[in-house]
Amino acid sequence: MVTIREKERIDDLQLHGLRLIQNTEKFCFGVDAVLLSDFADVKRNSKVLDIGTGTGIIPVLLAGKTKAAKIVGLEIQEEMAEMASRSVTLNQLSERLEIVQGDIKLYREYFGKSSFDVVVSNPPYTNKGCGLINPMDSKAISRHEILCSLEDVVSAAAALLVPGGQLAMVHRPERLADIICSMRNNGIEPKYLRLVHPKPGKKPNMLLIKGNRGGNPELKVMEPLYVYNSDGTYSDEINKIYGR
Amino acid sequence: MVTIREKERIDDLQLHGLRLIQNTEKFCFGVDAVLLSDFADVKRNSKVLDIGTGTGIIPVLLAGKTKAAKIVGLEIQEEMAEMASRSVTLNQLSERLEIVQGDIKLYREYFGKSSFDVVVSNPPYTNKGCGLINPMDSKAISRHEILCSLEDVVSAAAALLVPGGQLAMVHRPERLADIICSMRNNGIEPKYLRLVHPKPGKKPNMLLIKGNRGGNPELKVMEPLYVYNSDGTYSDEINKIYGR
Repeated sequence: MVTIREKERIDDLQLHGLRLIQNTEKFCFGVDAVLLSDFADVKRNSKVLDIGTGTGIIPVLLAGKTKAAKIVGLEIQEEMAEMASRSVTLNQLSERLEIVQGDIKLYREYFGKSSFDVVVSNPPYTNKGCGLINPMDSKAISRHEILCSLEDVVSAAAALLVPGGQLAMVHRPERLADIICSMRNNGIEPKYLRLVHPKPGKKPNMLLIKGNRGGNPELKVMEPLYVYNSDGTYSDEINKIYGR
Repeated sequence: MVTIREKERIDDLQLHGLRLIQNTEKFCFGVDAVLLSDFADVKRNSKVLDIGTGTGIIPVLLAGKTKAAKIVGLEIQEEMAEMASRSVTLNQLSERLEIVQGDIKLYREYFGKSSFDVVVSNPPYTNKGCGLINPMDSKAISRHEILCSLEDVVSAAAALLVPGGQLAMVHRPERLADIICSMRNNGIEPKYLRLVHPKPGKKPNMLLIKGNRGGNPELKVMEPLYVYNSDGTYSDEINKIYGR
């Protein structure tokens, strides 16, 4: 039995029958989470941590797409973490998935050093410092670096990854310099960059990046990923990622 | 009267009647130099330095395309520098263009601090360390970081640019992390990144990057630049840059 609260709905993820509870008034998952789940290299039996898991969308998708042994979603907001836990129960994934409510800055309290093979994160995109944000607003917390900065994510990943382990993130292109410098300063070498463009010929509005703890310098910039074709239909690649 | 030596030829640049002397057995300019000349923001009356000017292609193109007051090309290889000087004379550009033969690591000997508004460079692309390079080979010097590393270029640019001045480079995508970190570590903030793809949908094989000394963090990743259309003809943008 799983409780569904007011303003909540159950979405069918169209993947192995998986479903997700979302609150229509809070941050709902987007294409970024779906692309990141596809971009990360999660091998059989590996241990994965999702920093800032929100609804738990990434752990639920990874549970469906990979043979990971254990996937942990860390979420600082209590209501969000509780809702994500219900999605785990709803999907009967409690053996492989765990939602931990906590603050990534206190990662030492929850996890041992070098305890994950892969860390993924779809962190808040926007630098804090804009005066108009309500810090109690759940959507703002998901979007702005109020409770979790890029540096918090990367430095925690560096401590929690095994040597050679992978950090995979989705983020905004305007933060590319911050991301690359933060990764390198924390000993995670950026290895693959994929820019996501709304259409062919348009500026990218998202980026996917993978780095390895202790990797050798050499960044592979991959082919562009287009969300839509020029005619406005979904690209073949997006249809494939969405399993259509 | 300009001397043309054996193995040398004069190429018509198809721009304001400008011409360039090249040695067919040495490094000849490519699309990268042309793209960089178009990408750099050179304002009227500005002073420009090209680090590792080679044949002098970039100063000659900038002289034709911009209203820069003074353009200096620095080249370490004596024969190359002498040939570039003859291209300056050939084009009757001695008032605005100067070729300096010297080593960028000794920039303090040739130039004053904060003496350029724009620094451009099409530096050697490949990290040294591959055992098969002949260090006396002129082509190898132009292609590999034998006499000039990325860090040499960026640190010299940081010292030679006015506050707010621009460093514009063309390079290889696999060095993107090195470039961004080197720029930021030297106080040049990466501001514009443009990836150059051989064709739509293909991986980029070149990058253009501009940073400002003392700029604020925020990198604009621009629309992709395609050299060829899918059908193998030159893209409209390339034709425009080449003035066709």
